[in-house]
Amino acid sequence: MTNKRILTGITTTGTPHLGNYVGAIRPAIEASRKGDAETFFFLADMHALIKCQEPEKVRQSSKEIAATWLALGLDTNTSTFYRQSDVPEITELCWVLNCMAAKGLMNRAHAYKAAVAQNLENGEDPDFAVTMGLYSYPVLMAADILMFNASHVPVGKDQIQHVEMARDIAGRFNHHFDSLFTLPEAVVEDSVAVLQGLDGRKMSKSYNNTIPLFLPEKQLKKHINKIKTNLLEPGEPKDPDDSTVFQIWKAFATPEQTEAMRKEFENGIAWGEAKKQLFELVNGEVSEAREKYNALLEDVPAIEKVMKLGAEKARDYSAPLLAKVRKAVGIGGF
Amino acid sequence: MTNKRILTGITTTGTPHLGNYVGAIRPAIEASRKGDAETFFFLADMHALIKCQEPEKVRQSSKEIAATWLALGLDTNTSTFYRQSDVPEITELCWVLNCMAAKGLMNRAHAYKAAVAQNLENGEDPDFAVTMGLYSYPVLMAADILMFNASHVPVGKDQIQHVEMARDIAGRFNHHFDSLFTLPEAVVEDSVAVLQGLDGRKMSKSYNNTIPLFLPEKQLKKHINKIKTNLLEPGEPKDPDDSTVFQIWKAFATPEQTEAMRKEFENGIAWGEAKKQLFELVNGEVSEAREKYNALLEDVPAIEKVMKLGAEKARDYSAPLLAKVRKAVGIGGF
Repeated sequence: MTNKRILTGITTTGTPHLGNYVGAIRPAIEASRKGDAETFFFLADMHALIKCQEPEKVRQSSKEIAATWLALGLDTNTSTFYRQSDVPEITELCWVLNCMAAKGLMNRAHAYKAAVAQNLENGEDPDFAVTMGLYSYPVLMAADILMFNASHVPVGKDQIQHVEMARDIAGRFNHHFDSLFTLPEAVVEDSVAVLQGLDGRKMSKSYNNTIPLFLPEKQLKKHINKIKTNLLEPGEPKDPDDSTVFQIWKAFATPEQTEAMRKEFENGIAWGEAKKQLFELVNGEVSEAREKYNALLEDVPAIEKVMKLGAEKARDYSAPLLAKVRKAVGIGGF
Repeated sequence: MTNKRILTGITTTGTPHLGNYVGAIRPAIEASRKGDAETFFFLADMHALIKCQEPEKVRQSSKEIAATWLALGLDTNTSTFYRQSDVPEITELCWVLNCMAAKGLMNRAHAYKAAVAQNLENGEDPDFAVTMGLYSYPVLMAADILMFNASHVPVGKDQIQHVEMARDIAGRFNHHFDSLFTLPEAVVEDSVAVLQGLDGRKMSKSYNNTIPLFLPEKQLKKHINKIKTNLLEPGEPKDPDDSTVFQIWKAFATPEQTEAMRKEFENGIAWGEAKKQLFELVNGEVSEAREKYNALLEDVPAIEKVMKLGAEKARDYSAPLLAKVRKAVGIGGF
């Protein structure tokens, strides 16, 4: 039996884009197929409320993200795929962990510190417009992780800190009450590409520079054509390592294709031609899934059914563990 | 139909004492009998975790408080009497409210400010030993109140602020999403006595000066004999308004009995005699309930059954309201 349990949450505040696909979804689904670990994936809709208070956007994003993962072939028999808000044990655990979590720990969280720095720069009160949701989200994240005794949490570098906080809180609980929680480890995959967006910065919905993953073909082509390039003419050698087109190419190509394109750049391929080839490469990888995605979004009850089954699977883990937690801290049935 | 809905939580961190009885339990049960309002009473065991991390103490206190209220004749048909941790909707709502609650609001909460002041006095970091439980408990309290659309919350003066925070958070939610929450009002009963303890300070478990409500008769007598008095001899006139014995007497006596005792004090009643009469008065009021209390504690499954029924009643309110909340903010089923 394996002890490796990988857990990944996806905040439901946007439409999945190529950056999400390359940086998170594709490696996650690949990891789930390896068979050397149990995998847990969830729609982090309670986290979404921190950033987004537009109900229709949160709901639409949840549907799109669920449809995306399913269309890309996530096997919900081998993985546990659920919606955070379908597992009420998580918020209950969150409260219990609140009582174990030092406030000082939250003061050091990046997201909070960034908000404070911004406020001070603007001459505002340090806590201006900071909600308790933003401030305490590392505790909810700890509950997400500890609720399923996840051992490995794949994260970007900026999130390592939060996994360490979960570890710290778990350690305190285990020490004080009962050793119920696995101490999770952050896993930073250096090999996973952080994709650049249309403007050359990191592809991110906050920069409004994304290429949505399942755009209709024509739209995908248009978007790829909008990728920022320099003014070098056809025939002039181009630096592949300074090019967003090449960077995205690399994320979708085989090593041989990457080498070939590198040569094309040195030989002065026209931007239009490079983009055309990039479109074909990306489209080739996503077109089949896109069809499934569109079909799924036409049949929301089918997605809902999968989510409900996922919630049942998730609660098979969370309910017995929470029962132990309740007993350990002295609450619940006499 | 009445729109008045009264809600009271009892933190499960101690054994009920005469001060709790006079200041909270007796008026609450009286209010529940008036028939002009719906009444909700709950064992606040999730709150208990903030202060008490000894599971056996929390559990024992929960049993004792449940048995106390039942022994004193709380009618669980007309009232809704439940254990907070049996209503998972509360912590889920707590998270949603976190996302609506300004962190700045929590910075102004008395309990947190007191902890910071103490830390600074001791030359510590302001947040030394402050947990996220202590810091964010006004949000949990808001969830307790709003989950049942309570309109009236009886509190001591130090708690008015927390009801106002609940009101503020409710107002934000109603404005931003949908008018789902009643704006609660704090009710401060000036007529309710704050009982003095053995040492003359406010009776409180934190001062270790309490007279537990259901002590065996002999113990009750002993405790009452320990009430601090001055050195005046029998025959010397005594000031009733400067006497803990008289203050407790007043809380249990009819107006006629109070007047009569006032005269006895002026006539120089011996402290021993005054305490003997006080014991008889208090014992007379509690002895019948004490028998029921002891019988209940011998039959914990019977208490548990009542709590489970109470949880069902409570969830008849909380589950449909939370469903509306989830829909309003965009989480849950598609």
